[in-house]
Amino acid sequence: MPEFFKVVTPDQVFEALSGFGRLAVETVPIDDALGRVCGADIASPEDLPPLSRSTMDGYAVRAADTFGASDSIPAFLDVAGAVAMGQIPGIAIGRNQAAAIPTGGFLPRGADSVVMVEYTNPAGDGAIEVSRPVTVGENVLGKAEDAARGECVIPAGKRLLPQDIGLLAGLGITRVPAYRRPVASVISTGDEIVPVTDDPPPGRIRDINSHSIAALVRASGGEAEMFAIVPDEPALLRNALEKALASADIVVLSGGSSVGERDHMVNVVSSMPGAVVYAHGIAISPGKPTLIASVGGRPVFGLPGHPVSALVVAQVFLAPFLRYLEGEELKSEPAGTRVRAALTTSVHSAQGREEYIRVKIEEKQGQIGARPVFGKSGMLSTLVKADGFIVVPMHAEGIPAGEMVDVFLF
Amino acid sequence: MPEFFKVVTPDQVFEALSGFGRLAVETVPIDDALGRVCGADIASPEDLPPLSRSTMDGYAVRAADTFGASDSIPAFLDVAGAVAMGQIPGIAIGRNQAAAIPTGGFLPRGADSVVMVEYTNPAGDGAIEVSRPVTVGENVLGKAEDAARGECVIPAGKRLLPQDIGLLAGLGITRVPAYRRPVASVISTGDEIVPVTDDPPPGRIRDINSHSIAALVRASGGEAEMFAIVPDEPALLRNALEKALASADIVVLSGGSSVGERDHMVNVVSSMPGAVVYAHGIAISPGKPTLIASVGGRPVFGLPGHPVSALVVAQVFLAPFLRYLEGEELKSEPAGTRVRAALTTSVHSAQGREEYIRVKIEEKQGQIGARPVFGKSGMLSTLVKADGFIVVPMHAEGIPAGEMVDVFLF
Repeated sequence: MPEFFKVVTPDQVFEALSGFGRLAVETVPIDDALGRVCGADIASPEDLPPLSRSTMDGYAVRAADTFGASDSIPAFLDVAGAVAMGQIPGIAIGRNQAAAIPTGGFLPRGADSVVMVEYTNPAGDGAIEVSRPVTVGENVLGKAEDAARGECVIPAGKRLLPQDIGLLAGLGITRVPAYRRPVASVISTGDEIVPVTDDPPPGRIRDINSHSIAALVRASGGEAEMFAIVPDEPALLRNALEKALASADIVVLSGGSSVGERDHMVNVVSSMPGAVVYAHGIAISPGKPTLIASVGGRPVFGLPGHPVSALVVAQVFLAPFLRYLEGEELKSEPAGTRVRAALTTSVHSAQGREEYIRVKIEEKQGQIGARPVFGKSGMLSTLVKADGFIVVPMHAEGIPAGEMVDVFLF
Repeated sequence: MPEFFKVVTPDQVFEALSGFGRLAVETVPIDDALGRVCGADIASPEDLPPLSRSTMDGYAVRAADTFGASDSIPAFLDVAGAVAMGQIPGIAIGRNQAAAIPTGGFLPRGADSVVMVEYTNPAGDGAIEVSRPVTVGENVLGKAEDAARGECVIPAGKRLLPQDIGLLAGLGITRVPAYRRPVASVISTGDEIVPVTDDPPPGRIRDINSHSIAALVRASGGEAEMFAIVPDEPALLRNALEKALASADIVVLSGGSSVGERDHMVNVVSSMPGAVVYAHGIAISPGKPTLIASVGGRPVFGLPGHPVSALVVAQVFLAPFLRYLEGEELKSEPAGTRVRAALTTSVHSAQGREEYIRVKIEEKQGQIGARPVFGKSGMLSTLVKADGFIVVPMHAEGIPAGEMVDVFLF
């Protein structure tokens, strides 16, 4: 059996992946921009708020007039009028004067702060008592305090959240530059694979990888094009690859699980015009039989045929790479949320490869634990039962119980 | 000014929300089921694998024949044949015999384990040397070990991940019961609000909440129907509410920010047939002026008009409630991912209300810190700059620096 001809480390995989460019930036309506990565620094086109506004219901005042006010010795102010919501106030505040103001109302000229209504009492004859002092700017959102004209309010590379969409709306920005979402062609290969709708004859198994890998692509913000299963036939694989490369930003093959069977995948991929193979074999477990290549400048992932290995490799390398294509920084670590937890049981590992151990999160008395999920590594059900996985570094022989580890959540 | 007439605690809000039923369960293709919540326990229709399979490239053997094997004293076995991938093997293994087997190949009769190819050497004349012993079941995924016929493989209430979709595909399950996604009508109200496409005249502001709250609904797995802005006019609000209730599972209003202005919202909502008001005012900050009601059995949220308060209330109450409608358990805490972090700076809080403090996550020497984001609470930009928020409990006066806190990530 031939060996993998180019076994590399995870770091080398990420180094190769960083050579691909991000996708192009397009302009999308803000209501379609949730979860997209901002494609340029967004500068505020105006001041927000355009004028100083009250953040409380109360009275607009000059702070100096409330100096020393208390319950026993309140400050007495004349009410010069009331500010209506949504209107520029016509009134102005002079010394020892106040104006009623609602939350969000614009401060009248002369006022520099707002006393909350709770700290005022009517004092008859159009006057109020103020029982607490305020400082200049108190209970006021100053002109341009939220965003100043020309200031960068959302940086390029930020994945847009509801509050970002809200801030863009508040500034009158209705369309935003965003990186394109990657389209991935997902192709299962193998003579033994039948479509999920078929009843597999003895010795065949249903296609799992098309469905799970397409779901992972979607969960990572991409669009998945699911191809028909390709038998172990170089000419058919070549055809499918050409078709996929013509329409997709990235091709994700899976199939074969041993060196012998993968031969024709690496042969077909490396014989395409402009092909460069970055990895044929990665020093990881599970997932060693992985192919990472570029064909005509497009990334091609050849995942292992084994469904568990395929999903683990996709979590560790494909998901962060898709997020990079979408505009994020390329991080040399699994995508998604990390949680710190204490390992409940020691795990052992072989040196010379990075190992991924499935764990369940446990919470006991506020302590978060990561408990390895037992069962053979080839069982898909262990992946279903786990909450995430931990990474045992390449040069470690394992991790002792009690050590704090990062759990990468599914 | 009238008081809020029914100020409740966050716990009372969740108690009221738990009285609503979850949405109906429908059946969806597995390729559309990512992120949906499974609507019933899924039992495996068959054994997976249907027969014992090898998890390694190597030789199928009887474990007893390898007992005591080592580099210096290898076991000699006759190769009885080779198992082809995807076929039920015709051969059987007898004493001191072996059969070549690829990863995923079905075990031939008589074999109970697999020796990895790395621990074998050709010994000439159709024989091999085995230099390590194996135990029964080693490198074999036994029949039904991944899923046994009738076993629950995915429980009701699980939000479906790529590996779940993969396991369903592997079992030939092409459609899965899933809770319906909630449709939320999102309506901004207020005379001072203009559409984002308009240049607001002096004293008016652009509609932020329609866009940010719709995005939050989508981020929580729901569909958002954005309505036109409704002026502060009871008859118009009533019309919009009737229209929204006819088409949506939940109505999310926002508008008004003080007691006086909210009056007509609570009046209109409470005058609808079959209306029950659960909360008019919640003991929280920000977000006190919130209305939670039921009209004809449908939930109605009246969020504060202030964009920051509206989003915070939506994060704390609406997001977990949407996830509950979608089939999850109702958790009395903000939705999403929590991270434990050490608070970098003491925060102070008023007793008698739950307070939400925006924080940025910092990482220094592997220690995760939560640093409060400075700036007035009404600034939307502070929400944009924060990574999440912490909760100061109702009866605390604050949290001292250094204390470990849960950060709820945006």
